[in-house]
Amino acid sequence: MNFCYIDGLYRKPSEAYIPVTDLAIQRGVGVFETIRTYNRRPMALSMHLERLQESARRCGIAMPLDIEEMNKIIRNGLSRFEEDARARPYITGGDIEVAGQFPEGRFFVFFEPLNPPEDRLYKEGVTLLPINMERPLPHIKSINYLQGYLPLRDDPEAIEILYCPNGEITEASHSNAFMVKGKEIITAPTSRVLAGTMRNMVIEIAKEAGFVVRERCPLVEELPEAAEFFITGSVKEIMPVVKVGETLIGKGRPGPVSQMLRHLYLQNLKRWLE
Amino acid sequence: MNFCYIDGLYRKPSEAYIPVTDLAIQRGVGVFETIRTYNRRPMALSMHLERLQESARRCGIAMPLDIEEMNKIIRNGLSRFEEDARARPYITGGDIEVAGQFPEGRFFVFFEPLNPPEDRLYKEGVTLLPINMERPLPHIKSINYLQGYLPLRDDPEAIEILYCPNGEITEASHSNAFMVKGKEIITAPTSRVLAGTMRNMVIEIAKEAGFVVRERCPLVEELPEAAEFFITGSVKEIMPVVKVGETLIGKGRPGPVSQMLRHLYLQNLKRWLE
Repeated sequence: MNFCYIDGLYRKPSEAYIPVTDLAIQRGVGVFETIRTYNRRPMALSMHLERLQESARRCGIAMPLDIEEMNKIIRNGLSRFEEDARARPYITGGDIEVAGQFPEGRFFVFFEPLNPPEDRLYKEGVTLLPINMERPLPHIKSINYLQGYLPLRDDPEAIEILYCPNGEITEASHSNAFMVKGKEIITAPTSRVLAGTMRNMVIEIAKEAGFVVRERCPLVEELPEAAEFFITGSVKEIMPVVKVGETLIGKGRPGPVSQMLRHLYLQNLKRWLE
Repeated sequence: MNFCYIDGLYRKPSEAYIPVTDLAIQRGVGVFETIRTYNRRPMALSMHLERLQESARRCGIAMPLDIEEMNKIIRNGLSRFEEDARARPYITGGDIEVAGQFPEGRFFVFFEPLNPPEDRLYKEGVTLLPINMERPLPHIKSINYLQGYLPLRDDPEAIEILYCPNGEITEASHSNAFMVKGKEIITAPTSRVLAGTMRNMVIEIAKEAGFVVRERCPLVEELPEAAEFFITGSVKEIMPVVKVGETLIGKGRPGPVSQMLRHLYLQNLKRWLE
């Protein structure tokens, strides 16, 4: 079951349209979020909607609805699924630009079955492709993904780009990134990257489990000495990384820290369900 | 008069729709061109369509039509105007992604009155805002413009971003960039920037007029000693730049070289009209 909320109606996605004049199509002006359910309850919905609002604000897009209205629409859509699902709300620039501001933002939401990563990936770990640049507009979750897509075509093994400007690891194209080194867990500060909701929860859980969490960019040159590396996102949760480019992480197999953190996260879900 | 060609029909732009599942909306997968007429004849139409095809190829988007078909549609649309006009063909990623390839690209074209820059801008010159980064995916004319839009909101004087990664001037957000220094005209090589159709014509004209054209990146540190600076594009032609950030170019007024080149270009138009 897939459907899309747009203009007050729930439609088949292929029958939900926007005019080609929308600045998302013309100039990539658009922001979005992905929210999933656990046991049919949305995870950190308010945090996601606040970030959506903040992304829109940074782009100069006026909010077409307030957070409360969006919250209702998303809850209503998700409640139509019998199993876990995800919602992807978008706000696009709309049809009008006035001096770099977009006064008539357009809102729609995709609703889809959850479709989580295969179990195999958690057991085997994944590969990332490092590139020497920053994620475009790192504080905005925008639709400008082309730079994070194209290099992957030449590397069928990698599942995401790892942005490493000047040897500093900031984030992956769709995820936050963490290095485990001794008793320390290292991840880029929110001054450099998107403040992932999953990132925040992992830091909370890791501190409670006795890890020292350092908010600084892990370095590419530290990768060979790292015990583990993992990426986080709402749907993938905590995904072990066993290779970055040609560099094997640890023994090239998922390590105990990422597995334990995922286990603790799933045990403590209730804190963030809404 | 504005209209849009889509799915075999000419429609009002606000009544031309694409589904929200198109990857242009979801992930910024889309490329475009702008073609103008002079005396109702399209300028360098073939060159533009070849570049559109090359942008699509680099993005992994399959061409929904061949160049000849696009050529006919664009000529037909432009012929409906009594005065000079512009066409903006887009190819978007369509609804399907398979391993970073987009096998069902979607094609549409905006047709609009020409709407060239005000005469005042040619007389007074314009200001650019320099930023320390490269244009995203410089060999592709993609819709991922957000990085070239947002910084301008804090600088109402500047009309475009000037990309200056590590002090090297590559191109502007919507234009190629040229520095005039003594008898030399300096512009970034096509290994670093989009090969603008106007860029090629200006180089041709400048060589014929006896200038030495150096294809290397002008440096930010050369700006104070530059006699002139200008940007080029299909609609703006050759636009003098009198200020880059806080740096005045020459005497802060448009200089004779950019004016002469624009004059020579307009005298030699016939070479490129189709």
